[in-house]
Amino acid sequence: MSKIQYGDKSSLSLLDALVESLKCLPGVGPKSAQRMAFHLLQRDRDGAKILAHTLNRAIRDIGHCKSCRILTEQEYCSICLDDSRVRTKICVVENPADVLAIEKSTDYKGVYFVLMGRLSPLDGIGPQELGLNVLEGRLKSDAVDELILATNSTVEGEVTAHVLSEMASRHRIQTTRLAQGVPVGGELEFVDQNTIAQAFAGRKSY
Amino acid sequence: MSKIQYGDKSSLSLLDALVESLKCLPGVGPKSAQRMAFHLLQRDRDGAKILAHTLNRAIRDIGHCKSCRILTEQEYCSICLDDSRVRTKICVVENPADVLAIEKSTDYKGVYFVLMGRLSPLDGIGPQELGLNVLEGRLKSDAVDELILATNSTVEGEVTAHVLSEMASRHRIQTTRLAQGVPVGGELEFVDQNTIAQAFAGRKSY
Repeated sequence: MSKIQYGDKSSLSLLDALVESLKCLPGVGPKSAQRMAFHLLQRDRDGAKILAHTLNRAIRDIGHCKSCRILTEQEYCSICLDDSRVRTKICVVENPADVLAIEKSTDYKGVYFVLMGRLSPLDGIGPQELGLNVLEGRLKSDAVDELILATNSTVEGEVTAHVLSEMASRHRIQTTRLAQGVPVGGELEFVDQNTIAQAFAGRKSY
Repeated sequence: MSKIQYGDKSSLSLLDALVESLKCLPGVGPKSAQRMAFHLLQRDRDGAKILAHTLNRAIRDIGHCKSCRILTEQEYCSICLDDSRVRTKICVVENPADVLAIEKSTDYKGVYFVLMGRLSPLDGIGPQELGLNVLEGRLKSDAVDELILATNSTVEGEVTAHVLSEMASRHRIQTTRLAQGVPVGGELEFVDQNTIAQAFAGRKSY
């Protein structure tokens, strides 16, 4: 911990405490935290006040959608409440940010299920933590005909997708997985070997 | 403003408000703000709570040292209260961060005066805003024998230094300015022309 000490003072000042607490933000180290603290105190006390207020409200009010587990301040999120969305397709993603990415990039009109993580037994994240029982409940009660597995293309994401596909097959529901291959605009020379291997094996008629 | 919209919802949600308020931090754009919001809500609600609490305390309690104008929660900062510091030397800097930089890099044992800015008439920052009357009061009352001008080496910093030196000369106090020249470890080939010109003109016997 780097203390902001003017001179020899050894007790932790309020300014130190502010710098320390700013370091809870992702990607913010001691230097940035110090810069942020000085900026807020010197130039933007109103912004800091609004930030503190909004943080408190967000922590208190934002929870998970009862149906898809995305972050929302309502009981159910706006997608789950939207009558125009098709309830027969469920797209399973790891994080709320993945929902935003898919909403922005595609015209998908189905609904989602957000795991809020991935299977990772070593970190104590099992089916319970990912709410797989909630998902299974939806597979039973709703007339689902496709479960889209959009977990990340990492080892843990693949394992999670595998477990999900087994669950779906117990309920005789078709599963699909996002295609793997060369990214759009990517040059083969700079694409990693695994991706090329997957893209080559998954080649399509042209 | 980039909204976090799940689907078609058009009203600003609490999550949007949190992202928006995080953008008051320096160097934080829409993408980072969104990442920070998700991180805090998914993984570090305790950190967010502490941050909100500390921000509120800091805005309420941190003000300026009555003597040197640095940011502090006390009436006088720890340097001004420190009896071992020499009161006959005053080092004038633009920002609190400059005090930290000098304290870390040198064994300076005098005291400081923090302008909290630089002369910039176009932005409405004149002698009053920089507390030059407070500084002049100290030059009159304390037995000061050296005013160290450590404002930045920018046009505005130089103008500010010039005004300060005129004030000091009215009180027959010696002024010094930080040396300009090639940075330690710098290669001449990559040092800008102005710096080389200054370093060349200010060459010393070896």
